Amino acid sequence: MTNGSADAVHVDERLLGRYIEELGRIGESPDGGMSRFLYDRAWQQARDTLVGWIREAGLEPRVDAVGNVFGRLPGASDRVVLTGSHVDTVPSGGKYDGALGVVGGLAALAALAGSGTPARTLEVVALCEEESSRFPANFFGTRAMLGLIGPDEPQRLRDPDGVLLADAMREAGLDPAAIGTAERHDLDAFLELHIEQGRVLADEGVDIGLVEVIPSIAWETITVRGRQDHAGATPMDLRQDALQAAAQMAREITGLVEQEGRPAVATTGRWTVEPGLPSIVPGLARFSLDLRHPDLAVRDRLLAGVHRICTDVAQRHGVQVDVTREKDEEPAAMDRQLLDVCRQAAEACGASWKEMPSGAGHDSQLMATRVPTAMVFVPSVAGRSHTPAEYTELADCVRGASVLATALHRLAF
Amino acid sequence: MTNGSADAVHVDERLLGRYIEELGRIGESPDGGMSRFLYDRAWQQARDTLVGWIREAGLEPRVDAVGNVFGRLPGASDRVVLTGSHVDTVPSGGKYDGALGVVGGLAALAALAGSGTPARTLEVVALCEEESSRFPANFFGTRAMLGLIGPDEPQRLRDPDGVLLADAMREAGLDPAAIGTAERHDLDAFLELHIEQGRVLADEGVDIGLVEVIPSIAWETITVRGRQDHAGATPMDLRQDALQAAAQMAREITGLVEQEGRPAVATTGRWTVEPGLPSIVPGLARFSLDLRHPDLAVRDRLLAGVHRICTDVAQRHGVQVDVTREKDEEPAAMDRQLLDVCRQAAEACGASWKEMPSGAGHDSQLMATRVPTAMVFVPSVAGRSHTPAEYTELADCVRGASVLATALHRLAF
Repeated sequence: MTNGSADAVHVDERLLGRYIEELGRIGESPDGGMSRFLYDRAWQQARDTLVGWIREAGLEPRVDAVGNVFGRLPGASDRVVLTGSHVDTVPSGGKYDGALGVVGGLAALAALAGSGTPARTLEVVALCEEESSRFPANFFGTRAMLGLIGPDEPQRLRDPDGVLLADAMREAGLDPAAIGTAERHDLDAFLELHIEQGRVLADEGVDIGLVEVIPSIAWETITVRGRQDHAGATPMDLRQDALQAAAQMAREITGLVEQEGRPAVATTGRWTVEPGLPSIVPGLARFSLDLRHPDLAVRDRLLAGVHRICTDVAQRHGVQVDVTREKDEEPAAMDRQLLDVCRQAAEACGASWKEMPSGAGHDSQLMATRVPTAMVFVPSVAGRSHTPAEYTELADCVRGASVLATALHRLAF
Repeated sequence: MTNGSADAVHVDERLLGRYIEELGRIGESPDGGMSRFLYDRAWQQARDTLVGWIREAGLEPRVDAVGNVFGRLPGASDRVVLTGSHVDTVPSGGKYDGALGVVGGLAALAALAGSGTPARTLEVVALCEEESSRFPANFFGTRAMLGLIGPDEPQRLRDPDGVLLADAMREAGLDPAAIGTAERHDLDAFLELHIEQGRVLADEGVDIGLVEVIPSIAWETITVRGRQDHAGATPMDLRQDALQAAAQMAREITGLVEQEGRPAVATTGRWTVEPGLPSIVPGLARFSLDLRHPDLAVRDRLLAGVHRICTDVAQRHGVQVDVTREKDEEPAAMDRQLLDVCRQAAEACGASWKEMPSGAGHDSQLMATRVPTAMVFVPSVAGRSHTPAEYTELADCVRGASVLATALHRLAF
């Protein structure tokens, strides 16, 4: 690691490496992928492990009503500068998404713990849920801290096995009735260290990404209904093949977004084709659309184009199409002053940096609606993420955590 | 029904209507679809019901070693003119596919039973398996009659629940060791009555289709491997999206076959997209191709075009593609003399007719390799088949069965 300037704070490489490897074994499956889902056994084990590490680092551990795990370095003031990320994963995800921000934040506070009492209190948090892998409860930990959990959620939301969120909480030793106590009004700032999950930093050889904005995401479900027919006995010119129409829509949507150029992205990742037999012309095809752009106006212009494509293709193919909006997130701008602090911290650490939009969504996008927030990215090898192949060099993890520690030092001391 | 000429044989409309409705309730699900799978409970019930009807009609019932059900009207000669079709169904199929040829043949023999002793023996058969809905044992009944069942099949083939074919046979009261006894060497002709399963006859207002040829079918599995990536963090220009490449292949394949024109058909009916999540760029897409043409040379020219498309699209999208041949059936020409007899029978019954290729595959395609064979089609309303919406007017069923009875009369008396 390059030493930039005297006021850089360097985290312990050996400690951070140990955190990453040990946390990366909790919920690991034989293919090397990570599966830690809200309140499941692996998640509980990760929570307990973190509480132990927080104690070892000389911080005060605390688990709130929804299972967010905090490590606190008390300051002269009770106002809090918070850092952290989420501890849950996608199914068969990688070791770094979320986890790095948790253990990087912990390594940063461990490094700062020896610097005396800060002016403002420092905390690191392992947010209990970001990926919605088990319950449709996106950003559950952050929402609890901001008082944004609906009163009916614990008794309404179920996992794919039918388990109620409230019962899963009790299983993990938590009381659903106490959710309100997780709300915080003492936060001055939130900094989140995260892997980029894309390949921009790696391709350009830049050490640190300073996130300016988290894009607006729209999720839609596009359902095409044609006519189920016999594959041998129905001439091509008499078909209303739902799959062929859907495939054409997916291609034209992709073409539209490719023409728009970076940073617009569209993904058609989930497909259902019915009845799904080789010898039957599909009567139904359903696919998901994930469309993102940092500029809400551009995103909505693209969505209007998507809807025109769906209508046009449906008409040409003689099929019906329905489009349902599943998710609609506004873009979240990061705090300019915090970004400047992070930039200065990067320079103090001798790290190259660039400002960039995030590709993915993060807890920070919600936190930013109430608390000044900034994100620091480190490079992802080959841009791989949400796969067991997700990887970030230890040196890059250490550099990112040191930039974080340096920024926290500037903010709290 | 029009009375064409004096030597027409007319089946009993009330009897055939009753057969269709009662058989159509065996294996019926709440959506009105039929599910009778080889050797399952509904299949056994259908077998037992048919044996009762055969007895009622004054025919000699017999169940062979694989569960083919025969009704015999003994003639002066032991040489047999056989008619029939299959009694199993696709999942949630219709009441007519297969079933009409069984009960239409039974109604035909019931009508002929009062005409004295035929010169040649007449038999109707309910073939035990055609659709491969439960076991990968396509044409099991016909193959048993032709001695084409592999000696290892009963101990090798399993249904989706892992049940061995041999155990399913025993469950239905059959002895797998006796399969060889089902082989027949006494067949002079086979006639199969069937619904068209397409809309050519209905659109053109023609009563009877005389099948000249059953097309050559190729089934292939096309597997596209790209790279699984994060949907937000991976710019469009850096993706290797398996689904987008597969969708493009499916569209280009369809375009190629549409350009070829009737009777070429291609269907991409089964799709698997992995990991299948909205926020992940698909790393794998796999789809089935069903390609049919009555002319083997044309079919193979089209397949060569398909493979060029797959290679070209894969190259353009930076993905890998593998193509596996799953099924390769040669076209089967129907017997010219039998077709002439069927044509004369149609004319005797006052039915309009046209010669046409079959769209679907049938037991007749295999039977035709050993025994002179012909098929008679009746119209399918709106060409619907392999769905609960499959329907043929009773008048069309009766007309088809009467054409069959008239043809059998000419062949056997």
